[in-house]
Amino acid sequence: MSIEKEAEMTKKVKIAVIGTGRMGSVHTRNIVRLIPEADLVAVCDIRLEVAQAVADELGIQRVVKDYHDLLDDKNIEAILIATSTDTHAFIMKDVAAAGKHIFCEKPLALELDKIDEALAEVEKAGVKLQVGFNRRFDKSYKQVRDIVASGEIGRPCILHIVNRDPDFPSMEFLRVSGGMFLDLGIHDLDMVRYQMGDVEEVYATGAVLLNDELKEFGDIDTGLILLKFANGAMGTIDNSRKAVYGYDQRLEVFCSNGTAMMENEKETTAVKGNMNGFTSAKPPYFFMQRYASCYVEEVRQFVECVRDDKKTPTTGADGKAAVVLGYAALKSLRENRPVKISEIG
Amino acid sequence: MSIEKEAEMTKKVKIAVIGTGRMGSVHTRNIVRLIPEADLVAVCDIRLEVAQAVADELGIQRVVKDYHDLLDDKNIEAILIATSTDTHAFIMKDVAAAGKHIFCEKPLALELDKIDEALAEVEKAGVKLQVGFNRRFDKSYKQVRDIVASGEIGRPCILHIVNRDPDFPSMEFLRVSGGMFLDLGIHDLDMVRYQMGDVEEVYATGAVLLNDELKEFGDIDTGLILLKFANGAMGTIDNSRKAVYGYDQRLEVFCSNGTAMMENEKETTAVKGNMNGFTSAKPPYFFMQRYASCYVEEVRQFVECVRDDKKTPTTGADGKAAVVLGYAALKSLRENRPVKISEIG
Amino acid sequence: MSIEKEAEMTKKVKIAVIGTGRMGSVHTRNIVRLIPEADLVAVCDIRLEVAQAVADELGIQRVVKDYHDLLDDKNIEAILIATSTDTHAFIMKDVAAAGKHIFCEKPLALELDKIDEALAEVEKAGVKLQVGFNRRFDKSYKQVRDIVASGEIGRPCILHIVNRDPDFPSMEFLRVSGGMFLDLGIHDLDMVRYQMGDVEEVYATGAVLLNDELKEFGDIDTGLILLKFANGAMGTIDNSRKAVYGYDQRLEVFCSNGTAMMENEKETTAVKGNMNGFTSAKPPYFFMQRYASCYVEEVRQFVECVRDDKKTPTTGADGKAAVVLGYAALKSLRENRPVKISEIG
Amino acid sequence: MSIEKEAEMTKKVKIAVIGTGRMGSVHTRNIVRLIPEADLVAVCDIRLEVAQAVADELGIQRVVKDYHDLLDDKNIEAILIATSTDTHAFIMKDVAAAGKHIFCEKPLALELDKIDEALAEVEKAGVKLQVGFNRRFDKSYKQVRDIVASGEIGRPCILHIVNRDPDFPSMEFLRVSGGMFLDLGIHDLDMVRYQMGDVEEVYATGAVLLNDELKEFGDIDTGLILLKFANGAMGTIDNSRKAVYGYDQRLEVFCSNGTAMMENEKETTAVKGNMNGFTSAKPPYFFMQRYASCYVEEVRQFVECVRDDKKTPTTGADGKAAVVLGYAALKSLRENRPVKISEIG
Repeated sequence: MSIEKEAEMTKKVKIAVIGTGRMGSVHTRNIVRLIPEADLVAVCDIRLEVAQAVADELGIQRVVKDYHDLLDDKNIEAILIATSTDTHAFIMKDVAAAGKHIFCEKPLALELDKIDEALAEVEKAGVKLQVGFNRRFDKSYKQVRDIVASGEIGRPCILHIVNRDPDFPSMEFLRVSGGMFLDLGIHDLDMVRYQMGDVEEVYATGAVLLNDELKEFGDIDTGLILLKFANGAMGTIDNSRKAVYGYDQRLEVFCSNGTAMMENEKETTAVKGNMNGFTSAKPPYFFMQRYASCYVEEVRQFVECVRDDKKTPTTGADGKAAVVLGYAALKSLRENRPVKISEIG
Repeated sequence: MSIEKEAEMTKKVKIAVIGTGRMGSVHTRNIVRLIPEADLVAVCDIRLEVAQAVADELGIQRVVKDYHDLLDDKNIEAILIATSTDTHAFIMKDVAAAGKHIFCEKPLALELDKIDEALAEVEKAGVKLQVGFNRRFDKSYKQVRDIVASGEIGRPCILHIVNRDPDFPSMEFLRVSGGMFLDLGIHDLDMVRYQMGDVEEVYATGAVLLNDELKEFGDIDTGLILLKFANGAMGTIDNSRKAVYGYDQRLEVFCSNGTAMMENEKETTAVKGNMNGFTSAKPPYFFMQRYASCYVEEVRQFVECVRDDKKTPTTGADGKAAVVLGYAALKSLRENRPVKISEIG
Repeated sequence: MSIEKEAEMTKKVKIAVIGTGRMGSVHTRNIVRLIPEADLVAVCDIRLEVAQAVADELGIQRVVKDYHDLLDDKNIEAILIATSTDTHAFIMKDVAAAGKHIFCEKPLALELDKIDEALAEVEKAGVKLQVGFNRRFDKSYKQVRDIVASGEIGRPCILHIVNRDPDFPSMEFLRVSGGMFLDLGIHDLDMVRYQMGDVEEVYATGAVLLNDELKEFGDIDTGLILLKFANGAMGTIDNSRKAVYGYDQRLEVFCSNGTAMMENEKETTAVKGNMNGFTSAKPPYFFMQRYASCYVEEVRQFVECVRDDKKTPTTGADGKAAVVLGYAALKSLRENRPVKISEIG
Repeated sequence: MSIEKEAEMTKKVKIAVIGTGRMGSVHTRNIVRLIPEADLVAVCDIRLEVAQAVADELGIQRVVKDYHDLLDDKNIEAILIATSTDTHAFIMKDVAAAGKHIFCEKPLALELDKIDEALAEVEKAGVKLQVGFNRRFDKSYKQVRDIVASGEIGRPCILHIVNRDPDFPSMEFLRVSGGMFLDLGIHDLDMVRYQMGDVEEVYATGAVLLNDELKEFGDIDTGLILLKFANGAMGTIDNSRKAVYGYDQRLEVFCSNGTAMMENEKETTAVKGNMNGFTSAKPPYFFMQRYASCYVEEVRQFVECVRDDKKTPTTGADGKAAVVLGYAALKSLRENRPVKISEIG
């Protein structure tokens, strides 16, 4: 490596990734290939061979099995946590205690007390924390928010979110997912806050309409949440585990002087016309495709926040708030009554 | 008039219109100009000059002020009632008792007991009754229903209706309208039944976000209704008194193997592209434009039902059911809890 | 009829229709039902029973077989000519000589000398003449023109017209139609002038790709015309006899600061999403549906021009110019070279 | 680097890039970051500092100023040429003579005899040659082609291409560009062959409507080409140097049983509705954004062809054919007559 190159790299944020499964490997590739502001110095996975494969592919030097091995490394400034949800809280605590900045995948945890403990440690350590609410970094969602924030279409009145997965995840995952509102819906429960601010009350309904297996563990595959916002507006979230035509991602913020909407993207812009009408392409099938650029952008911004000592765009408080809303929706679903957010947590 | 012409006209259904205000004059013009199966023999309005003006425009021979004058006319087979809502029920009773078939504008009445009395008289008299739920006669709504009914996209899971008026009606009207859910929303509360069948429970929320005057008489200008259907599906209705960009009329029925949607029509198909993006036309501003063809089609079908002694496509039971749903939504709104439809009426 | 009604009708323009076939019967119905400014006093067709049927349907008193019978009727102010193209010119001459205003279907004639003779008689008689270029009265085409005319998107650079019929007309008609560019394309050859002004040169190509029968009489079923305009801009016309997905009617005027387009209308606004993508409706199948409102509007404006003594929106010169362009395209097609418009007529 | 990593990299195709300006640096980044099948071993630019900067950014070891220095390197299997057009031909000859496979940017050259000489050397050396017609690797263009190729919508009748740049390139570039049809239009002249096969005749028109400076060197800023294909179909190409609303990239292949179209992509899927209508986003502004994935895919496929000894998807013959068509269009423009392709070259 040239001297110039080494000099430049000394300015880069040194980062490690814990958990190199589906999301973790995406983040790892993005950091190495597309985020020149960072230097990925180590990867970690309890399945060592999984971490090793990613390291080999990308030419990463250091691979560890136990994340504790990274905590004493003074070279590492920041750690991206992409392990399974049940391990987020204790890893966050350890990483914060080691004085390293944290990017943690959503949800922070499924237990509010564990979230509180982790956030307390983060605050005590004075490290930065960013939660992986990737959709906030999508240019279309952002443009809707910007249109509304500009005031040009008046005050928000009604919000609608449609978030439908193209197909069920595995039953193994579903059994530990926390339920549809806390897993699939967690993105929406953050997005409503991004678009509209605080929620005061929710009313939720849901049903098993697609796969009776879910009844065994009390989950649903189809659900609606009605929300009342502190700003006086109201809204709905529409969640389904299976939209056969692809990953359905839409949003509308209806306002007093207009409306701002986000439509689905399309896999291609080809259109076929024949006796049956005009047929255009489905949306991108999978979240990795639809939100590919967000996964880069969120980590890039995190790296910038670390490098330039700025506030992270999604905070621990955001991470907790979405989980609180999820529990409010779950309580409403079970008790069939509107639930005030203040009842939770 | 030629002999052939007269011979043909003897086969036409002889019809009279009571109430020649906004909707009544539309129906009158449609019958005269566009429904050759009917012969409009008389118009009636308590404001005689209003009826006379329409009659002059269209060459209608008979004009009366008091609808009782029409009841003994053996020549009249059917009567279209387009008076103000508070008079529907007693006129229906009188018309039914006179043995004439009835087309009545929606809502049948704002009081359920009056509806019941009128429907009892209709049944006793054995006359036909059709309620003016015009949207059931729109080819786009119908196509969505046909797609779902065909079974090709599986079972219905989630329904969404957006029904936003382009602007507030007069304050005078609003004070006696029965409230947004019973006035604006009545179409949607019928449409959900047309698309999905029976409703079991509703939860409604609403607010005054646009015009504080409404608070004086306890109405709302923005509202959402969440519905649970007997078929296990769920849905939402979105109502606003003012969408500045025009009359917003959309629908989606999301199903287990696909989705069926109805988008807005556009005033023109012109599109302008410039530095600001690509701008297409607003939807037709007013319900009279958007649903122009439905107003013809619903009365044409009514006339056919009378002529051929067939069952009307929208019945008195449909007319009552929408009002019951409206009261359930209103009760939910006031008590902030889900309300079973069986609690009403 | 009431006295008031009669008084009003004396102010109406008295009009007769010659030729009550497909287009003539549409115009007749429109005048009777939808153009209160006119009074349709007579219909004429050499097939008397055809005229009689329309008259019976609409309650028209006078029916004649020979159009000369209408010429001496002082009561008739204007005559709409919707006979077969080969009769337009001599009927126009006779009607003009009789001092009556003329609405004539397009094309005025297929022979330029006959057009010249008829226009000379029209000028001599000082009567008004409007040619049935219905598309100029369509709100979408008009909006494109208005956007360009406003100057907000700069100077016109490139125009594209797509005009594809949903299916072939009968072979009988095709043999006397004058060829695709003079029959189907005549609308486009007028539309280019409406949107862009004078044409200076055309280059045309065409082929039989769909139905070999056309080769017998030297016609084509697929063609392109490239045009150069006096304003420096250029353009294309795309014509096909058969678009299986319906009547394809599109336009674009690309300008130096933006673009203005007209997209297809759709039969309904329903959209179906499934494994194959998202399918929306075809355009209206037939010109009668697509341009229904234009047929009313063009005659309504003609009636107003007669009543208020105004210049007609489409003149005899427009009628001739489109035919001249058609012959230029035909000459170009046959000689495979660009043809200046000044070479024709 | 780990032993495993080195072992894997021995299987990679060793490639060098000559010319690291705008396109060359894009290719270099893509190869390093996104094409793991290749190993980028050297970059070359006569402006050494330009090559050095890219090498530093990406950690590339070898940087040379003179491309001849690469020719003897047995380690290098393939070379990507992204220098200025006037140098393509002689570099190609040298690289071919050195026995290395070639990926060359379009156009191959602006002189047909130089193209012939280079292609002869390529053939003699038996090396692979791929020309950078990136649009053939776009999934939307490809889907249109696949729909037509499947035969499901019948035989092709009319093709339309719209290719409008968002703004003028620099005057310096324009003076040596070869003219709009050979520079901007070269993509379309290849795309028509990709979609429809051989062209038999073209007729072109063009004008300076946007920037009078172009008249100094005889170029145009607005042009249309009408094409006749060997398969009997016909088509148009629409080129403009400046579409203020962004990079306008559309295509239609109208067929006997339907139509296949490619619409513009949009920068975001946000839509704003207000009093002015509904406004959606502009297309991506720049070709680097619109065709980003194609630049990766074309080189990835080239690398695979080298690795697996397969025929390249775009050949030298394709590269020449597009230039021939460009000269035919230019000749037609200058002589204002249709020009047979056989007249050229």
